[in-house]
Amino acid sequence: MVKRKLETCFSPALFVPADNIDSVVVIIDILRASSAICTAFANGVTSIIPVAGVAEAKEYKTRGYLVAAERDGYVLDFADFGNSPFNFTREKVEGKTIVYSTTNGTGIINLASSAYMTVIGSFLNFGALTAWIIKQERDVLLFCAGWKNRFNLEDTVCAGAVAQKLMETNLYSTICDSTIAALDLWTLASKDIHGYINKAAQRTRLRDKNLDDCIDFCLTTGYTDKIPVIRNGILVDNIL
Amino acid sequence: MVKRKLETCFSPALFVPADNIDSVVVIIDILRASSAICTAFANGVTSIIPVAGVAEAKEYKTRGYLVAAERDGYVLDFADFGNSPFNFTREKVEGKTIVYSTTNGTGIINLASSAYMTVIGSFLNFGALTAWIIKQERDVLLFCAGWKNRFNLEDTVCAGAVAQKLMETNLYSTICDSTIAALDLWTLASKDIHGYINKAAQRTRLRDKNLDDCIDFCLTTGYTDKIPVIRNGILVDNIL
Repeated sequence: MVKRKLETCFSPALFVPADNIDSVVVIIDILRASSAICTAFANGVTSIIPVAGVAEAKEYKTRGYLVAAERDGYVLDFADFGNSPFNFTREKVEGKTIVYSTTNGTGIINLASSAYMTVIGSFLNFGALTAWIIKQERDVLLFCAGWKNRFNLEDTVCAGAVAQKLMETNLYSTICDSTIAALDLWTLASKDIHGYINKAAQRTRLRDKNLDDCIDFCLTTGYTDKIPVIRNGILVDNIL
Repeated sequence: MVKRKLETCFSPALFVPADNIDSVVVIIDILRASSAICTAFANGVTSIIPVAGVAEAKEYKTRGYLVAAERDGYVLDFADFGNSPFNFTREKVEGKTIVYSTTNGTGIINLASSAYMTVIGSFLNFGALTAWIIKQERDVLLFCAGWKNRFNLEDTVCAGAVAQKLMETNLYSTICDSTIAALDLWTLASKDIHGYINKAAQRTRLRDKNLDDCIDFCLTTGYTDKIPVIRNGILVDNIL
């Protein structure tokens, strides 16, 4: 049996759309966009419209949409809420469509839209996500959002956790050094994931802004079975 | 005392020249360009002119220069030799100026030329290199060449080895996730560096082309005290 190819990309600046048109692409941005999106679907959001620009998000607001929008961690003044998963409570989001613009995450969602399928991954939906990926019988790209085009630790170790689960099936092969590095860093990190993420630059940035209250939550597995997927540029629940 | 900043860049696609104009940049491309360049200086080469394009390399050849040029590991037909460190013997290179064009390395040398100082790093000159860097009292960027803009393992673990040596002095600080990852991967790799590099994609590529005879040599430390440096776009011996 021919094994499926497993690759990892550490930064939007390294992503090559043409290489992934037949692949399942998993966007990983755990602090905090992909964790927030998984939480929103767990709490019954109908769909999320990702927009890259602030002006566009503001325009949606004037049309009556709920808008989640932040830059560098801070909620924009016109927005209903920001980028913390704790914002996306059932009371606020159930049955709604949200417009969502973050520093990093939404640009990447648009970038990856040309793949065969693009889904949102985090520790929160880890079990359902990995089971679903395996069922697709497709090449896989784990697409780490990074930070301002730089490599980051937290998305890399999450990618490593997903990669380990996939490699255990013996259905995948990899000659991708990024995947090998992610696997090795996950092996190190998994012994004490909270301690390991403490080393990450984004952990420090969030702490400096008093935005780090959600980190323990973002490192939780098994919180939701939802797998947000991009259809026609919009995030919807994959089960629908 | 204010500590110097230590950062690591995993790919030319992630390198930002403007961020490094006051830094010492160390180009690391151990399989095989940076190891070959260190070997050439160990064997008495006078200078190396890096050129990115094949046409330019060919033009130098017609003007009587010794030319080292390869693409994807193979020596170009007009060139005197390719990219293996074993090509750069004392008999061939002592007292000469060589024109050098490789798939990856020479483009990066040109890209990094705007830094305060740009030097060539490898395991071969590891001890002299780290001692020299510390003496500069400057911010440092470890610039991994990668492969076709992708992250690679072998340059990352070499960067991790350099980073460990610098961090031990207590003169540097880092909030760069790439540096933390490089340090952690070096900690893993250093237990069995040959075994670890066996996992790297470039190891496989070189083996498939029968070009892997130099790998053990490229993982040797203490081979030379030479630190090639770029001056006016040309590589010269730093001691001169």
